[in-house]
Amino acid sequence: LSASVFIAGDWGSSRLRLYLCGGDRVLDRRAGPGAFDTAGAHKAALLSLIEPWLARYGAGPVLLCGMVGSRNGWVEAPYAPSPAGAEDLRQRLVRVEGGPVEVMIMPGVAGPGPRGTPEVMRGEETQIIGALALAPALARGRWRLGLPGTHTKWALVEDGRIVSFQTALTGELFGLLRDHGALAKVDGERAARDGDGFVAGLERRPARLGAGLLHELFEVRSRQLLDGWDCAYALDFLSGLLIGADVEGALALFGGSAREIILIGEPALTGRYGQALAHFGASSRSLGGEECALAGLRSIALGMKDASRVAD
Amino acid sequence: LSASVFIAGDWGSSRLRLYLCGGDRVLDRRAGPGAFDTAGAHKAALLSLIEPWLARYGAGPVLLCGMVGSRNGWVEAPYAPSPAGAEDLRQRLVRVEGGPVEVMIMPGVAGPGPRGTPEVMRGEETQIIGALALAPALARGRWRLGLPGTHTKWALVEDGRIVSFQTALTGELFGLLRDHGALAKVDGERAARDGDGFVAGLERRPARLGAGLLHELFEVRSRQLLDGWDCAYALDFLSGLLIGADVEGALALFGGSAREIILIGEPALTGRYGQALAHFGASSRSLGGEECALAGLRSIALGMKDASRVAD
Repeated sequence: LSASVFIAGDWGSSRLRLYLCGGDRVLDRRAGPGAFDTAGAHKAALLSLIEPWLARYGAGPVLLCGMVGSRNGWVEAPYAPSPAGAEDLRQRLVRVEGGPVEVMIMPGVAGPGPRGTPEVMRGEETQIIGALALAPALARGRWRLGLPGTHTKWALVEDGRIVSFQTALTGELFGLLRDHGALAKVDGERAARDGDGFVAGLERRPARLGAGLLHELFEVRSRQLLDGWDCAYALDFLSGLLIGADVEGALALFGGSAREIILIGEPALTGRYGQALAHFGASSRSLGGEECALAGLRSIALGMKDASRVAD
Repeated sequence: LSASVFIAGDWGSSRLRLYLCGGDRVLDRRAGPGAFDTAGAHKAALLSLIEPWLARYGAGPVLLCGMVGSRNGWVEAPYAPSPAGAEDLRQRLVRVEGGPVEVMIMPGVAGPGPRGTPEVMRGEETQIIGALALAPALARGRWRLGLPGTHTKWALVEDGRIVSFQTALTGELFGLLRDHGALAKVDGERAARDGDGFVAGLERRPARLGAGLLHELFEVRSRQLLDGWDCAYALDFLSGLLIGADVEGALALFGGSAREIILIGEPALTGRYGQALAHFGASSRSLGGEECALAGLRSIALGMKDASRVAD
């Protein structure tokens, strides 16, 4: 049994998702603190969560992806250079020393983006490998993928390898402006507004306007002051403005392509990105971010076993 | 004496600057808390600061500008519609009721920006009036002014009136990304870097790249991770990226003009904007923001006295 049972973990900066995997099935799952909330205590945090699994199933290997492998995580797993596919990543897995259970950490990916600036990802590479496993058609030919989030990634995948990618600060900017900025602070003039603030934001198309975004953002506030927008509508407008700018820019990143764009992420977010892509004339399909991470870890883990069997 | 002695106050959200003015001279000055730090206690805060002046010079009028006149300030002074010059603003001064000293608050200005979106300013109108007083040549013809800050304003002034203006969120975004974001958090790989990060940021010219800014900001972080940029250099680069995008967009705002751009603000900031303007081929001249605010308040106050003399 233990040969086919292993533990997969998506350990991001603020959240750990652990899966006890048996073949194609998830036998159990647990959640834990983020890799940046566990400074110096990653092993203890992990062991306390998986102890029941170890006791019942034996010390199966643990495969982790995400910020746990960053410089400020548990053990640094250096970036694989792009282009990188599943086998490239598997060869750069980093083993955590010191037992009692075998722990391997996924590398991130680094390489020049479509504009030549350096780019890094960590965690998204596993989701992309998972998407290729869940939708095998993606493993052949040229595909554009979008992974919306705090740092949205737009990736070009060719024949199963991540060739190039670009980060957009969309989610971080939205969060900063919502939580700390002066933009959405004038609530209550009107209880609610008709219409869809997100679509109104999309329609601004700041990407068409040169410096655009810097000069468009203040409308969120001036409309509250002058037109009585409530905060919910204003934040939807801000979301449309930012996602619209991101998507419109992304469509130009890797050159034209008739194919749909594959979105990977939380459904609420991929839904908004899909709506924005449709607004700009591009079709898309969405895959769940959690499902892709798990599928990517499973795909890498199963390959490890295959490899070790061959080595045996 | 008291007829020519008055009190001018620049009362922004986070800072109060008070001046005891006698004709063209500043007889004394004091500093106090911001208009948003004084909720419900504006009168007490003001009186405690000016009491010695009232005792010595009598209850001269007090003229205030800035966020003290906003909805969340002391008494709301509604926006004057653009175009607005000194006389338009003077006619919309709002008198604070309840004594013991006469207090008048400057209105802000509102109107459609160059792209048709609604715009508001509060405080900058007084600095602009002051700039026209300090440099009378600006009071005739068509001039472009830049007032860099948390919310940078770009204004078109024609024959002494503010015709149109545009807000850029440059300073707020820089502060949010520096203080709360993930961009500049990887210090220490290299102690320092050769070269000027600000100029490197200017040279990115995100405005030329469509969505640009959203897709350019992450370079601040990836270069720290991959190239060992220290935080100081990374923040200078971020500053150049943001100010460059702001300035490049601003140069297109009001149509071409051979004339220099007038910058009003803190010297460290107008210096950076002047450098960015020069980088994009535009000349500029800088005036101190504090001096302009004081000159604007004086100009409005002296006009009040002239008007009342005429009325007598």
